[in-house]
This record gives sequence, C-alpha cells and structure tokens, in this order.
Amino acid sequence: MEIYTTGKKIRESARNGRFSDTTSGHAPNYVQSNVVILPKEYAFDFLVFCQRNPKPCPVIEVFDVGSYNAKISAPNSDIRTDVPRYKVYQNGQLISEPLDILDFWDDNLVTFLLGCSFTFEHSLVRNGIDLPYYNSGKNVPMFITNIQTEPSGLFSGPLVVSQRWIPRDKLVRSIQSTSRFPTVHGAPIHIGEPDKIGIEDLSNPDYGDPYTKINHDDIPVFWACGVTPQAVVLQSKPKLMITHFPGHMFVTDVNDEQIAMI
Amino acid sequence: MEIYTTGKKIRESARNGRFSDTTSGHAPNYVQSNVVILPKEYAFDFLVFCQRNPKPCPVIEVFDVGSYNAKISAPNSDIRTDVPRYKVYQNGQLISEPLDILDFWDDNLVTFLLGCSFTFEHSLVRNGIDLPYYNSGKNVPMFITNIQTEPSGLFSGPLVVSQRWIPRDKLVRSIQSTSRFPTVHGAPIHIGEPDKIGIEDLSNPDYGDPYTKINHDDIPVFWACGVTPQAVVLQSKPKLMITHFPGHMFVTDVNDEQIAMI
Repeated sequence: MEIYTTGKKIRESARNGRFSDTTSGHAPNYVQSNVVILPKEYAFDFLVFCQRNPKPCPVIEVFDVGSYNAKISAPNSDIRTDVPRYKVYQNGQLISEPLDILDFWDDNLVTFLLGCSFTFEHSLVRNGIDLPYYNSGKNVPMFITNIQTEPSGLFSGPLVVSQRWIPRDKLVRSIQSTSRFPTVHGAPIHIGEPDKIGIEDLSNPDYGDPYTKINHDDIPVFWACGVTPQAVVLQSKPKLMITHFPGHMFVTDVNDEQIAMI
Repeated sequence: MEIYTTGKKIRESARNGRFSDTTSGHAPNYVQSNVVILPKEYAFDFLVFCQRNPKPCPVIEVFDVGSYNAKISAPNSDIRTDVPRYKVYQNGQLISEPLDILDFWDDNLVTFLLGCSFTFEHSLVRNGIDLPYYNSGKNVPMFITNIQTEPSGLFSGPLVVSQRWIPRDKLVRSIQSTSRFPTVHGAPIHIGEPDKIGIEDLSNPDYGDPYTKINHDDIPVFWACGVTPQAVVLQSKPKLMITHFPGHMFVTDVNDEQIAMI
C-alpha cells in the first residue's frame, strides 16, 4: 500500500475521496488527533472538562466557532472533508458513518482536536518496545476503569485506559519516553494489578483488540485514553456530536518533536 | 513579619482581614495563582485564548459557573474573600481595589486560576540564581513585546514578558529548571538581544521594577508573563473583570512538586 509521509498529503487524499482507511502507520512523525465536534452550547463545559482531565483529553486545538479550518496546527485544512471517515451522533444515537460531513455542517459547531496515542506509540516502538497491533490493522486494547473523571457541567463518567504489555527491563524507559508527550496522553496512570483500577479480565477489553504478553515478565501498563471524552459526551446525549471514525484520525502539520515537553 | 507556611493559612488570614499584603515569600512550596474573573458570556473565548497561548496563560483551574470554591486546587476556599486584595474593572476602567469582592459577586461569574511565576522563581533561587527583587517587596521587570498572541474571539494583543538576568554559566540550568513547570509559564521564550522582541530599554520596564546585571556576563532572559491575559482582556473592555491585586495572589493547596512535568 502507499504510505503517506505527511499530514498534508493524507488530508488531500481524504478530501479527494482517494483515502478512507485508518491512518495508523502513515505520516509517522506528524501529530495525529482525535476529533470531537459539538454545538456551541456544549463547548464551554466540554473545554472545561478537558482542562480538568488533561490526561485523557489533551487539547491540541480549538477552532473558532463555525470555523472548519485548523488554522494553528494544519493551515489550509478543512475538517469537513480531511478526516478519512466520520461518525455522526444525534441525541446519543449513531446515525451515519460518512466520508465527509458537508451535509451536517453549520456555523454553530465548535471543533476540538485532542491528542492521540499514535504519537507516543511511535516513540515506544523506536525504544524497542514490541506493539504487535501497531501498523497491522488492529487496535490497542482499551478498558473502562473504576476511576472517575472530574466532572464539568453535563459531562461525567469513568476514565477509559489503553493497555500495553511492557517488558520489566523497559518499564522505566516507557515511562520516560511517554512523559515527554503530555499532549498525547503522556505518562501512564497505572502499572500492574489491573483489578486495582476495576479491570477484571485483560483478555476481554471494552474496545479494541486484546493481545497476550510476549515475554514471561511483561507487565500490563495503562495509559489514559482518548476514547474517554467521546464516551463521556455520548452519555449526555447531545443533540449532535461528530467524531472521527476510530483509527481514522485527523493528521496535522505538527511534527511530533515540536510537542515534546523537553 | 509572620511567614505563612501553607496556602490554607494564608487564605484564612486573608478571609479574616488579618492579611492584605503581597504573598511573595509566603508558602514557598505551594502553587500561587493569578486570578481572572469574568461574566459567563466571555468565558469560552477566554478559555480558548488560554488554550492557544499556554505559555502566558497556563490554566490551573476553571471554576463551575457561579462557584466561588476552587474545589480541585484548594477545597473549602472562597475566591470572594481568600485573595489578600483585588482589582475590579467595569468597561475597562478600574473602579475599586477592595479587600473582598462579596459586593461584586453574582451567579453568572466564571473564575480562572492561572499559573504564577512565584513557583519557578523559587526553583531558580534554589538553583543558586540571584533574584534581588524576590522576597524584598519589589517586583520582576516586565515588558510589552512585539510578539502577538494567538487571538480568540474578542481577545488579542501583544505578549508581555518578565525579564531576569541569568549568569552565562547558569543559562542551561535556568532553562532546565523552568521547563519542569509548564503550568507556571515554563521555559523562557527568548534569550539575549531584547531589541529582537521589541524591547528598547531594559532599564525602563512597562510594569514592575528594573534591576541591573549583577555579574559582567549576565544575559537577559525572557519568560512569558501572567500580565498578558489581564492586559489582553482589559483591551476589550468587558463589562466586568475582577483580578487579584498584583503580587497578592490566590495561594492553592497544591505543592509545587505536584505540578512539575517530570
């Protein structure tokens, strides 16, 4: 398959209808983002929710009300066409999974780009940590925990985490390397003992695909996950919410090193 | 003078009218914050302004609409009484510098706590960098630059910076130690050559008190400053804005090590 090397190229191909696939493995040095689009009346409470829960909801950019252009992180983009595939919810019900959202757009919508773990996974892989689902069409396993997010207005609910098996001798390095990227979920929130955060069975995730430990002494490590804000917002049944289709991210023009903390 | 050791003690004394002084040098291990209080109609645009300009406007906490309690960073506090002194502006004009804001409060107000450089100055001092104004009743020199902030809605204007003289052999350490604290302005935005950012005369700051270099090879280093959001908001003449009186900060219960990035 053709590998797109930049965010600009992948957005152009999505816009022209030539690309409607997952963005995993494409543009590996560019920041990919979760997309949440909501009517203005929900925007302040949602942004405060993100501020109070920065690990699951790291904000990359908030568009001006009604704007469809990511003027800071991807100038000349169009959020209505540049995501490979979308999900559209009305009153909490999925009504469409379209390739563009031109028919759903109106001037009252506010777009939020939130960090995606694709960036720190690239860093884990470069640090020699094996992620068998990465770049293979599968997804990381994700679990609903018993940890409550900090509520804001309508929005409240449990934290969702992603889980990766980390070899004991790479544990410190995995914490260091993900700590560098706070705007794509950053450092883990829990290490070992899944039951301590309400996870009963690692082979049965709430979202994504499970994978088994690769080495005898691999440890399950848990990171805050970008599914959290979508799950929390959906629970409150907003009259309209548009998101990217899982794994089909909005790819920015920002290089991952530009968002590294140090 | 009595030195208050915790945020809780200093807030109680401010509330009881026993303390109306600058908080510099008090509760040195607790995060102190700038206060901006605005009517709800300005809150979303202001929070987006902070998100787009995280170096001058690092958000510590946003209160629920109408709430006067910092439920996350200082439970049991009351923002109407717990700041040693306030400034109240109507339509861009200063109308009062009261010791509490009980008479100005209404249920439509949103309170923002923004990081204050007192935290990273404590870190610079512990790293052996001499800040002669620190803890002496004087203030750091601050300058309006020719760098524009990223606008949001009504809010736009130039970045304000604070300036400190750093010995050449402490330059790297000063960058490292302030980088650890992104929520209190973090790493510098400029080193040396003040004219490159529109500053003509270091002896004539726009706010605060100038001080001269201590060593022959001291270098002027510039950090984004919390005066920026107040200056920007004031320019748009909101019908009401309440802030802390300069140097008279809201002191939280959060220990500075808890907000260090790594």
